[in-house]
Amino acid sequence: MRTDHDVPSAPAPDPGSGPTYAAPVVRGREPTDAELARTMAAEMTTGVLSTLARDPVGTPFGSLAPFGLDGDARPVLCISELAEHTRNLQADPRSSLLVARAPVAGVDPLAGARLTLVGQAMPVPDGELEAAKAAHLAGNPHASYYVDYGDFSLWRLEVESVRYVGGYGRMSWVDLDAWRSAEPDPVAPLADGAIEHLNADHADACLLMAQRLGGRPDAVSAEVTALDRYGIDLLAKGPEGAGRVRLPFDEAVVTGPDIRAATVALAHRARAAD
Amino acid sequence: MRTDHDVPSAPAPDPGSGPTYAAPVVRGREPTDAELARTMAAEMTTGVLSTLARDPVGTPFGSLAPFGLDGDARPVLCISELAEHTRNLQADPRSSLLVARAPVAGVDPLAGARLTLVGQAMPVPDGELEAAKAAHLAGNPHASYYVDYGDFSLWRLEVESVRYVGGYGRMSWVDLDAWRSAEPDPVAPLADGAIEHLNADHADACLLMAQRLGGRPDAVSAEVTALDRYGIDLLAKGPEGAGRVRLPFDEAVVTGPDIRAATVALAHRARAAD
Repeated sequence: MRTDHDVPSAPAPDPGSGPTYAAPVVRGREPTDAELARTMAAEMTTGVLSTLARDPVGTPFGSLAPFGLDGDARPVLCISELAEHTRNLQADPRSSLLVARAPVAGVDPLAGARLTLVGQAMPVPDGELEAAKAAHLAGNPHASYYVDYGDFSLWRLEVESVRYVGGYGRMSWVDLDAWRSAEPDPVAPLADGAIEHLNADHADACLLMAQRLGGRPDAVSAEVTALDRYGIDLLAKGPEGAGRVRLPFDEAVVTGPDIRAATVALAHRARAAD
Repeated sequence: MRTDHDVPSAPAPDPGSGPTYAAPVVRGREPTDAELARTMAAEMTTGVLSTLARDPVGTPFGSLAPFGLDGDARPVLCISELAEHTRNLQADPRSSLLVARAPVAGVDPLAGARLTLVGQAMPVPDGELEAAKAAHLAGNPHASYYVDYGDFSLWRLEVESVRYVGGYGRMSWVDLDAWRSAEPDPVAPLADGAIEHLNADHADACLLMAQRLGGRPDAVSAEVTALDRYGIDLLAKGPEGAGRVRLPFDEAVVTGPDIRAATVALAHRARAAD
């Protein structure tokens, strides 16, 4: 990851009223930007396509574009000959696809992750149409209503560079081979449920983890804020301030039962660490 | 409105299982595309900015951009000198801003409305900074945390053309003067609640409206699907098929009590029409 932005890692608290910020404690492996980007791309099914307008020629033009990723991590589009973006791509293949999660009410949209895939969009060659159609429909099943219409065709974005912005002050140009070979996090669809369960039913264990494994013996609360295949993030609060604590699982988790076993192991280790 | 797309006005029903489609019945005034576009732009606070990359030069590059509209319907951005889009705009001001509502789970994203404002982005001149800052913060209050940082500055998109896509098969280039002078629908923030109330508590009255005012005497159900300052949309179902019925209010509504009075008046008229 390259950090090339001087935005602070979190908005400044209200002077005099908010908590102070404690230094983050990071133990173990974290997902790479390539993995975070692939995970988000696998989860999202609509992006914004930027193309070059024909009139005035060369003006960047944004449009909505449902997509599915193929096996080589290329977005496959199903677009109409009659739409602006298709006419634009016929004249100039240069384009990019911006993918971002929907904003959450009350949360700064710039705190969220987003991804720009930059490259050239080309019609899918005849011999690869079936695989491309399957890739598109896996992301965008609604296209089954129109994918076989005469004016629709399948296009593929040949990705040449990948820009990932993970939130405040975290951004990088992702290595192209790393993007292609990264695997989406298999537990991403389970993370929200697991986080809710840990915070609702195991707050004491999470606090012990922050105190005894996460270098925050002062903590009086520790809320799980993220969970991925490699570990969990906690927001620990105590006299030293509010700060991130990152704790690793023993090995990468793949399934729901794996998450359960890995978090139970963390809790046992925290209890034994006193 | 210009329709220049051969996508059908709704996805084809499952052969043999879905309802047949009845011809729409439209009475009275409907919002113009300029009004629909301004209403959506007033409601949304984050768009996707398309700019021209510096390397490779001229490639369209999409990025997330919170915005607020100023009094002349220009998006005001607050962007960092260190971000890609800002560096891109410094080299070439041509850009566009795509605005779309967040997709709804299970609904085809192409059924939703979206808007592309195309033009040139320029730094806001010194004398107009305060007004621009207020416009941006009205849309994006989170920027209060960073709007005064040294590396952030206010930019304004001078809109040169407006593309509105209202959903399946409804799209137009909106006249620029119409865009600038259109007023956002004052009852848009109230519409969802009013629709829910009408369907939950006044289904009989809505059915009478479709039967007696909307040219659908065969209707056995009529669900309100949209409400704006000028009237309501119903989806009427009966032996003749499922079709849209549009009914006008006597005059444009502005407030919640106006909506109540206007829908009560429609119900009275339907009862009296027998």
